[in-house]
Amino acid sequence: MAYGAPRTHDLSPATFEKLRQTSTATLTSQLLKRGFRNVFLGGLQALRPDLRMVGYAFTLRYAPTREDVGFEVEYDNETNVQRLAVEAIGEDEVLVIDARGETRAASFGHILATRIKNRGAAGLVSDGALRDTPAFREMEFPTYIKAPHATTSSVVHYPVDMNVPVGCGGVLVMPGDVVVGDAEGVVVIPARIAESVAQDAFEQELLEEFVLSKVRAGSSIKGVYPPDEKTLAEYSEWRRRSGEDS
Amino acid sequence: MAYGAPRTHDLSPATFEKLRQTSTATLTSQLLKRGFRNVFLGGLQALRPDLRMVGYAFTLRYAPTREDVGFEVEYDNETNVQRLAVEAIGEDEVLVIDARGETRAASFGHILATRIKNRGAAGLVSDGALRDTPAFREMEFPTYIKAPHATTSSVVHYPVDMNVPVGCGGVLVMPGDVVVGDAEGVVVIPARIAESVAQDAFEQELLEEFVLSKVRAGSSIKGVYPPDEKTLAEYSEWRRRSGEDS
Amino acid sequence: MAYGAPRTHDLSPATFEKLRQTSTATLTSQLLKRGFRNVFLGGLQALRPDLRMVGYAFTLRYAPTREDVGFEVEYDNETNVQRLAVEAIGEDEVLVIDARGETRAASFGHILATRIKNRGAAGLVSDGALRDTPAFREMEFPTYIKAPHATTSSVVHYPVDMNVPVGCGGVLVMPGDVVVGDAEGVVVIPARIAESVAQDAFEQELLEEFVLSKVRAGSSIKGVYPPDEKTLAEYSEWRRRSGEDS
Amino acid sequence: MAYGAPRTHDLSPATFEKLRQTSTATLTSQLLKRGFRNVFLGGLQALRPDLRMVGYAFTLRYAPTREDVGFEVEYDNETNVQRLAVEAIGEDEVLVIDARGETRAASFGHILATRIKNRGAAGLVSDGALRDTPAFREMEFPTYIKAPHATTSSVVHYPVDMNVPVGCGGVLVMPGDVVVGDAEGVVVIPARIAESVAQDAFEQELLEEFVLSKVRAGSSIKGVYPPDEKTLAEYSEWRRRSGEDS
Amino acid sequence: MAYGAPRTHDLSPATFEKLRQTSTATLTSQLLKRGFRNVFLGGLQALRPDLRMVGYAFTLRYAPTREDVGFEVEYDNETNVQRLAVEAIGEDEVLVIDARGETRAASFGHILATRIKNRGAAGLVSDGALRDTPAFREMEFPTYIKAPHATTSSVVHYPVDMNVPVGCGGVLVMPGDVVVGDAEGVVVIPARIAESVAQDAFEQELLEEFVLSKVRAGSSIKGVYPPDEKTLAEYSEWRRRSGEDS
Amino acid sequence: MAYGAPRTHDLSPATFEKLRQTSTATLTSQLLKRGFRNVFLGGLQALRPDLRMVGYAFTLRYAPTREDVGFEVEYDNETNVQRLAVEAIGEDEVLVIDARGETRAASFGHILATRIKNRGAAGLVSDGALRDTPAFREMEFPTYIKAPHATTSSVVHYPVDMNVPVGCGGVLVMPGDVVVGDAEGVVVIPARIAESVAQDAFEQELLEEFVLSKVRAGSSIKGVYPPDEKTLAEYSEWRRRSGEDS
Repeated sequence: MAYGAPRTHDLSPATFEKLRQTSTATLTSQLLKRGFRNVFLGGLQALRPDLRMVGYAFTLRYAPTREDVGFEVEYDNETNVQRLAVEAIGEDEVLVIDARGETRAASFGHILATRIKNRGAAGLVSDGALRDTPAFREMEFPTYIKAPHATTSSVVHYPVDMNVPVGCGGVLVMPGDVVVGDAEGVVVIPARIAESVAQDAFEQELLEEFVLSKVRAGSSIKGVYPPDEKTLAEYSEWRRRSGEDS
Repeated sequence: MAYGAPRTHDLSPATFEKLRQTSTATLTSQLLKRGFRNVFLGGLQALRPDLRMVGYAFTLRYAPTREDVGFEVEYDNETNVQRLAVEAIGEDEVLVIDARGETRAASFGHILATRIKNRGAAGLVSDGALRDTPAFREMEFPTYIKAPHATTSSVVHYPVDMNVPVGCGGVLVMPGDVVVGDAEGVVVIPARIAESVAQDAFEQELLEEFVLSKVRAGSSIKGVYPPDEKTLAEYSEWRRRSGEDS
Repeated sequence: MAYGAPRTHDLSPATFEKLRQTSTATLTSQLLKRGFRNVFLGGLQALRPDLRMVGYAFTLRYAPTREDVGFEVEYDNETNVQRLAVEAIGEDEVLVIDARGETRAASFGHILATRIKNRGAAGLVSDGALRDTPAFREMEFPTYIKAPHATTSSVVHYPVDMNVPVGCGGVLVMPGDVVVGDAEGVVVIPARIAESVAQDAFEQELLEEFVLSKVRAGSSIKGVYPPDEKTLAEYSEWRRRSGEDS
Repeated sequence: MAYGAPRTHDLSPATFEKLRQTSTATLTSQLLKRGFRNVFLGGLQALRPDLRMVGYAFTLRYAPTREDVGFEVEYDNETNVQRLAVEAIGEDEVLVIDARGETRAASFGHILATRIKNRGAAGLVSDGALRDTPAFREMEFPTYIKAPHATTSSVVHYPVDMNVPVGCGGVLVMPGDVVVGDAEGVVVIPARIAESVAQDAFEQELLEEFVLSKVRAGSSIKGVYPPDEKTLAEYSEWRRRSGEDS
Repeated sequence: MAYGAPRTHDLSPATFEKLRQTSTATLTSQLLKRGFRNVFLGGLQALRPDLRMVGYAFTLRYAPTREDVGFEVEYDNETNVQRLAVEAIGEDEVLVIDARGETRAASFGHILATRIKNRGAAGLVSDGALRDTPAFREMEFPTYIKAPHATTSSVVHYPVDMNVPVGCGGVLVMPGDVVVGDAEGVVVIPARIAESVAQDAFEQELLEEFVLSKVRAGSSIKGVYPPDEKTLAEYSEWRRRSGEDS
Repeated sequence: MAYGAPRTHDLSPATFEKLRQTSTATLTSQLLKRGFRNVFLGGLQALRPDLRMVGYAFTLRYAPTREDVGFEVEYDNETNVQRLAVEAIGEDEVLVIDARGETRAASFGHILATRIKNRGAAGLVSDGALRDTPAFREMEFPTYIKAPHATTSSVVHYPVDMNVPVGCGGVLVMPGDVVVGDAEGVVVIPARIAESVAQDAFEQELLEEFVLSKVRAGSSIKGVYPPDEKTLAEYSEWRRRSGEDS
């Protein structure tokens, strides 16, 4: 079992801020332009759609449980990998649980989530179920799951590894990947291209704001979405003026 | 590829109004009385459950994509059938997308929806996913989908046809069918029986309002739901008096 | 076809009250401690997540329909088992429908639910669909379903039995089992252990409130969750003082 | 729990023989002509596709198991409903198990099947799994299942009732229904129309044999399939001559 | 509804022969080298795994049925699109049915398949069910389906179009695409690259035959699979000698 | 990424032989007696149902792929974990692949399987797909998969780890677990109890052979299955005589 390597998280505060303001739809488009087709986690729902999430992936992998391993009701904080992960996760990290899409029991609960939030974690993502979901909806902590389930995780899950590459929602998540969430869901960005993706996504949204204003005003999409040269020239002018205004 | 025939949409304003006030549950019952068992689109959710939708089906059919057709990130408004549909849909029409139930990428997005709303479209229905769902929840436009997904449609969909018979949510939708949506979901009514269905559904809801008032007041369902002759006589009297009151 | 035996429902009012205040997550943990692994109904959603539900299971079993049995649009209150159940359910009972997880038509509707509420029923649970869901969201009646569907139940369901053991959401439900629901979902408690489960769940939640307050205050989970002897001693002291305060 | 009423099985030997010679495809068509749309059990496979099965349904219903009921490894032949069914099933009956489509453990095994075969049963149908499938493939006993699974049934199933209406493969099966199987699968025929269905199916196959001989000889389907008057006249002649030949 | 354009099918006999000898696994690899990721039809089974299939796609599209369209038991050969397709398909064409993956009724049967075989069709592919599967297993006609089902197609399917782009098994199939089947399943090759794919696949299989002989003789895969320069040199020598031998 | 610890495989030859002769059904029962409920891999099929498989688990874990990792058509034998596993697996080991149940591309192929067979591997198990399945059916190598698929694995899989605990077919598989397969499927036995399970399973099958002979001869299951004291005494006598005979 591998418990992961030291982690370097070095996005600039400006990039963090851009990612926080950009939609997962736009980020996914920028990733597709770079050849990435499968980066949005499928089948998850936001328990706090009003919160945005940006952080670095800290992964936790579950296998199916078996009666000779970890089938306790009370957990041992010295050996249980789930518990070790809770006390290992750090500032600005998002706990991403590979629960194999299994929703016949929970994969995490409210007290543990409170602890990782206190340790500075930026959010929680699982492609399994969560218990205590009513409490999660009250908590200021971005959380994404597949379904609620009241049963404690040990009934179906055996935590095996942390900080290894995992699958979550059908998508590869590598430790240290940048993970961004909004009300639509969660997108994973390979760390080495996160700055460039954030910058281009920010630009794209400015352009689309302009496109949308034209469409709202009655324009056809022809020449406007995608924009032709004339529309791009108008956009430059609009943007220049916006700059002057502010 | 077929782009459809001229469309005649000729429901009376009174029928439109009745359909707007009647629940999809009642309409489905009226259709069952006429022999139609499968007219409610399965597995969809309303993004704007507070809005009612009534219109004529304008269908758009997607096939799976392939790397030699339409796998662009930017779309060509002159050839892409999705884009042609956006600029072809008309007043009082509902865009119904056959996305084969596929939710591994979106089937439509916010800017295009803004455009069809501006063209007078009455709503949007897809048995696939949508992107920009947070923006859709802000938009005054009835929208029904299977799931949110941030990825742009070209990753899994290739738009092929418009205004051909399609399947959506496991139900046949013919161009020109009347499409009605409420918070429960979407029902499809063959155009030639829409007036009669609307009228009978309206009558049925009046009767059920009376039945419900009796049940609320403590009545058993026996003799009341369904109503026997005595209850029907009471109902006639109640209705007569209601008329006098108003 | 079996229409069930006389039912004795004899939980104390204090137990009822404890069950109403305890989460399904805690109850599920107490049941797991007693060896029960599969007691939380999977895949259901609360239509009224703001209401709590406690009652005794009154079961209703549906088989697939066939054109020679019960395929009417209007129902016969003298022979249709669904209708007989509506007029048989009693005070503090929860109607639990085994709809085989089938959601291609509804399994119950609003007028019947109004009637069972008037008869004193404590809630409604179905692993199929419901129609009139917008009305259910307005009604002061805890209701749990798998999905909405406008189509009336006779299109796919044939009501066969009442008050026999059934499956619902993948879980055994016996007539007279105690059924508890909160915003997370529904848990089934065998009647003969319900008092003990309620008592221990109540105690567990007190302890977890203390644990959570420590974690919120910055404590590690080590020694605290699960609590070691030192924490348990602190908890006793805390609880004693809480008692003094009140 | 209901253990069923006395059963009268009174098809003539000639009807039995016709059903044995007719395909489930033809029988399903005859049932559709009488208005029955859903009589073929979905998702099952024949373990002995070389054997034909005709008999009367003897149903057995399973609910999900729970740790306080029937979770033994060894079964009690005096109380376990599965075991009671094994010693209750009679001559020419087909054991039809409603296993809720659940395949995470078996629903029956080889020793019990040997016993019911010895009691004169005509076959075994389950929409769950079977264990000992290699032995079933060696046994002269028509058997239809959804999947193999080595785990004994008590891990997921709790036998509740026998000879009640059940669902199997999504189809209603009433005790005493006529059940017919071939290599394609299993069809259920309401007992009161079985003679007429058998007779018409027999006639239909004769006609289709003639149609097929024409299509094989190069004929278009036009006028032939379905047959027009000219083809029907040829068929009468062909059939008359066949009669003379034999 | 579109019934398709004239079709030009112009692969050389040598290419046909190469495709007949090459596995779908190898063809899929050659397509991946050209950027095609999704060309193998998922979830189908060969009813005649002993036969190879090569031909040009002739597509047939089904929508869900409805009681006001095509819900007959007997079909009209003049208007029913399924029947029109049967009498329109030509030499070397493979009938590819888009049945939306729906297996609750058949999508085609034995008499129609006999007719299209007589018209020179090269095979039959459907992502729905077939009836008369026992007869199909006896017929010298390559056939690929998702499941058997005895019920006639009109219960769930309404044939709409022929020779339009469709989805089948999750893959785009365009009229005129080259369709190849072996015991593993079916691959679709865009017509304009079929010659080049066939040639390279043929070469790849020769090389893999050599690689396999080395691995069988005890070689590691290192340097051999994929082959390094030394192995490629050995292969050239082996191939040259094979040529001399023959 | 963890590539596993040294492996000690120390079952006696007699135990190996017993496991080879015992059915997975019997082994699963013995495991259930020891408290293990979930040890039979669900949803798999044997490509060579005529072969028995006994060996020690050598696990290989795949995550979803992404365009920046391992998305090559040709594989690098020095870095690709799949390829490293092929050259690391040893005598009597069974390669167990955790493919997340994903069947939209293969998880392994024929040349690699030939190599591991040459290295002494005892079999291959994957809960994903395999390509070259026609060749696998010809190969003397026990192989269990979920489905065939011609597409090479890199399109959906990224090999991450070997010899870590994995899930396969919904069951935990630990490196070194004993893995047994027959025509029904695959069961996993924790290594430390394998000797005892093998011994008791062997005994159980002897007893069941006796029980079956009685049932075949017309006995009721009462007193015989499960056997009461009288039957057990008969069995002892029968077994003693069998011993004398041989």
